[in-house]
Amino acid sequence: MPEISSDLLARLADLLGPQGFTTDPADIEPWLTDWRGRYRGSSPALLSPASVDQVAAIVKQAAEARVPLVPQGGNTGTVAGATPPADGSALLVSLRRMNRIRAISADDNAVIAEAGVILSNLHDAATAIGRRFPLSLAAKGSATIGGLVSTNAGGTQVLRFGTMRNLLLGIEAVLPDGSIFHGLETLRKDNRGYDLRQLLAGAEGTLGIVTAASLRLVPRPAARAVGWVGLPDPQAALSLLRRLEEVTSEAVESFELVPARALDLVLANIPGTRAPLQGRHAWNALIEVTGAEGGADPAALLETALGAAIDHGLVEDATIAASEAQAEALWALRESISEAERIDGASAKHDIAVPVTAMPAFLIEEERAVEAAFPGCRIIAFGHLGDGNIHFNILPPTGADRSAWMTEKGPDVSAFVHDRVAARGGSLSAEHGIGQAKLAEFVRLADPVRLATMTAIKQAIDPLGLMNPGKLLPLASRAPTP
Amino acid sequence: MPEISSDLLARLADLLGPQGFTTDPADIEPWLTDWRGRYRGSSPALLSPASVDQVAAIVKQAAEARVPLVPQGGNTGTVAGATPPADGSALLVSLRRMNRIRAISADDNAVIAEAGVILSNLHDAATAIGRRFPLSLAAKGSATIGGLVSTNAGGTQVLRFGTMRNLLLGIEAVLPDGSIFHGLETLRKDNRGYDLRQLLAGAEGTLGIVTAASLRLVPRPAARAVGWVGLPDPQAALSLLRRLEEVTSEAVESFELVPARALDLVLANIPGTRAPLQGRHAWNALIEVTGAEGGADPAALLETALGAAIDHGLVEDATIAASEAQAEALWALRESISEAERIDGASAKHDIAVPVTAMPAFLIEEERAVEAAFPGCRIIAFGHLGDGNIHFNILPPTGADRSAWMTEKGPDVSAFVHDRVAARGGSLSAEHGIGQAKLAEFVRLADPVRLATMTAIKQAIDPLGLMNPGKLLPLASRAPTP
Repeated sequence: MPEISSDLLARLADLLGPQGFTTDPADIEPWLTDWRGRYRGSSPALLSPASVDQVAAIVKQAAEARVPLVPQGGNTGTVAGATPPADGSALLVSLRRMNRIRAISADDNAVIAEAGVILSNLHDAATAIGRRFPLSLAAKGSATIGGLVSTNAGGTQVLRFGTMRNLLLGIEAVLPDGSIFHGLETLRKDNRGYDLRQLLAGAEGTLGIVTAASLRLVPRPAARAVGWVGLPDPQAALSLLRRLEEVTSEAVESFELVPARALDLVLANIPGTRAPLQGRHAWNALIEVTGAEGGADPAALLETALGAAIDHGLVEDATIAASEAQAEALWALRESISEAERIDGASAKHDIAVPVTAMPAFLIEEERAVEAAFPGCRIIAFGHLGDGNIHFNILPPTGADRSAWMTEKGPDVSAFVHDRVAARGGSLSAEHGIGQAKLAEFVRLADPVRLATMTAIKQAIDPLGLMNPGKLLPLASRAPTP
Repeated sequence: MPEISSDLLARLADLLGPQGFTTDPADIEPWLTDWRGRYRGSSPALLSPASVDQVAAIVKQAAEARVPLVPQGGNTGTVAGATPPADGSALLVSLRRMNRIRAISADDNAVIAEAGVILSNLHDAATAIGRRFPLSLAAKGSATIGGLVSTNAGGTQVLRFGTMRNLLLGIEAVLPDGSIFHGLETLRKDNRGYDLRQLLAGAEGTLGIVTAASLRLVPRPAARAVGWVGLPDPQAALSLLRRLEEVTSEAVESFELVPARALDLVLANIPGTRAPLQGRHAWNALIEVTGAEGGADPAALLETALGAAIDHGLVEDATIAASEAQAEALWALRESISEAERIDGASAKHDIAVPVTAMPAFLIEEERAVEAAFPGCRIIAFGHLGDGNIHFNILPPTGADRSAWMTEKGPDVSAFVHDRVAARGGSLSAEHGIGQAKLAEFVRLADPVRLATMTAIKQAIDPLGLMNPGKLLPLASRAPTP
């Protein structure tokens, strides 16, 4: 890999101006470590373009000099997909200054947002015109649209509205040769060949830099009902979900599974939380149902459905929030699980998917299998049951030195879990992506045909291998010294 | 292009057996002409594999012999995407024998269907387990899943559920080198890199042959309400649609715009039809709203909403079907437009999309522009207003020899329409695809960056150019004589 020349840096400084270019280590430092703090990179400069033309100019200059680029948004990803290589061979490109909402329309149910728009700002902009953008996740205060598109982000509303991919109408991106792909049309239907938008979505910056996206908006619900139920097992949870979907015409927006052990951790580690139900239940679910202006009251619907479920033995106990404050308190229990785990100490985390109907058996059988293979370990498996996506986290045995255990046993535990997921036709990355953190496991378990096809596409679009090298695919940058 | 050797044909006959191989011109003849009868191809043999392994073997043999393949399903496409080249240089591969539903699950809300499954059979299979597959179109009695996926089909339920792309969970396909892409997992979330499913969907068979797909199912509605309204203009129609979506929480499944001239043609040319409203209205809309078991009655919702719309002057008159028979009669008016046009005579047809909010002005302004540029022409513009997708058809002047007019003026008229669509950021193919019929216009108006990227992908995945050559991209097969 060639050194990054002072000549190139000078040209980029000139192009971007003082607001858009820095080599000051203090400015760069906060962006060199991934969100989980497990990877650390290095870069001689941080580039912060303010327009798509500046991005295109950066990419052209870098391509000429054969210098790799690492695009970055809010840096909230969990697989180190936006962390530059440690050898300082790449330039870091922040999209955070490109934070304009270029257009928003209630009639069109669409918004065009630049890559650096923060998710919660997009939520606010939609609310201001009587619409909403139906994708949310814990990092919404810093995650950006470009990163959310590039990682095909999920979250807690996927059940009804799908992942970022499903909300994507168009994309503007700078391709590896510095050309601009203009694809921001807010068309609902467009059958002019290969869907390049969907190819760039979830590509983790390896095929180009997403600079803006047009996204679907949806009507705001007139009312919501939030409930918490205690359940005997995951199968009962899934049966309840399917019943609720029939009764509400799919207006179930969230159905989050929470095992007793996760709730225990939250109640123990997060101040101000309290148990939502009187008894302790092996499994719990947080449910949100919304209602339209002309439709039935979602709280009444939920109450009737849960009453029937209790009569049928599906549900052991249930409560429905009587106020927005109570609803928020129930949501806080779910959203505090990761923080409660962090306070508890290190664990081996997995973001897995299997077909929805296979998940209840997976949870029961694989918990047993892991406990048998790694005696003393405890499982905390929680999350998006209706999407077939569970965060399947494994805690070291009580009393173990957790850091040491993670170093010694973590990789074996993860390989064990991933093998079991693969055997059930599942995915070792449901929503977090591959990045650096899952690359080795992805390659180990990938279908060779899938991997070969992905590699052929990467090499066709980025023949020099300069776009976010070392992420998603096991390709080093192939750029010869110019 | 090399001759197709008798040696290759003998090996394929051996591989496929008498049920799967024919060179009898009488067997091949029905599949050599496109649905609209405008293109005619030729092929020395029709191959009808019964399994993905047979498809893989065909592709391998053809690749070795450098012989192009043209995959075909129900042959109901409108852009001649499944019609072989006229010089007989390619083999026709029918997927119609691969017609098994491999798995279907109400709990998973998913079905795995082979490429040759006919859409209406899929509808029936979903109904049998209390679910539905929410994509429908006029050709449902012969269109197949493989073709619907490969063309990213639309239809009359896109408003709520999206096109085929949005309903696609997984794909099995044979790639140009004969390898099998196994991607049928019915996962709701899977972030393992580039979305190859979405790349194969809508690729019109140019990147491989789709052999099976896993697809989303949704709950069946408990009730539906079908209405017909008379409207002063398209803007009133769009305002009404947005209001209905708010009131029903997006349970508006269809909103089809029908101008007076289209209704006139139907009433004149289709026996047994009668006007749904008393007066003649410049514009009409057919509306379908569904309701869930626990929700409000959709007919009552629709009645209230239409009453308010009449009070506000948005709607001139309205009727709501009081029975399934009346509902079917209203739908028959909409679904007979193409047939009524066919009886009326040749016209220049366009399948265009613009952003939804731009469509009302487009309809008014472009009708005027076309009539000014081509005096005496009449416009029939109908279809999926809520998707921003209208079938914008131009009839020759009254009394003109329509065939002669089409030959003389048709290309100019179409170029004129496509230019106007492009100027508004629209698409010249909203749902029909490119195939052969729109290839020249697509290339003329395509963004060069988009075209170059598509070409790079095509060449990376199909370096010999053997998959459905001459469709979608202006690439001849590049295969040298082996």
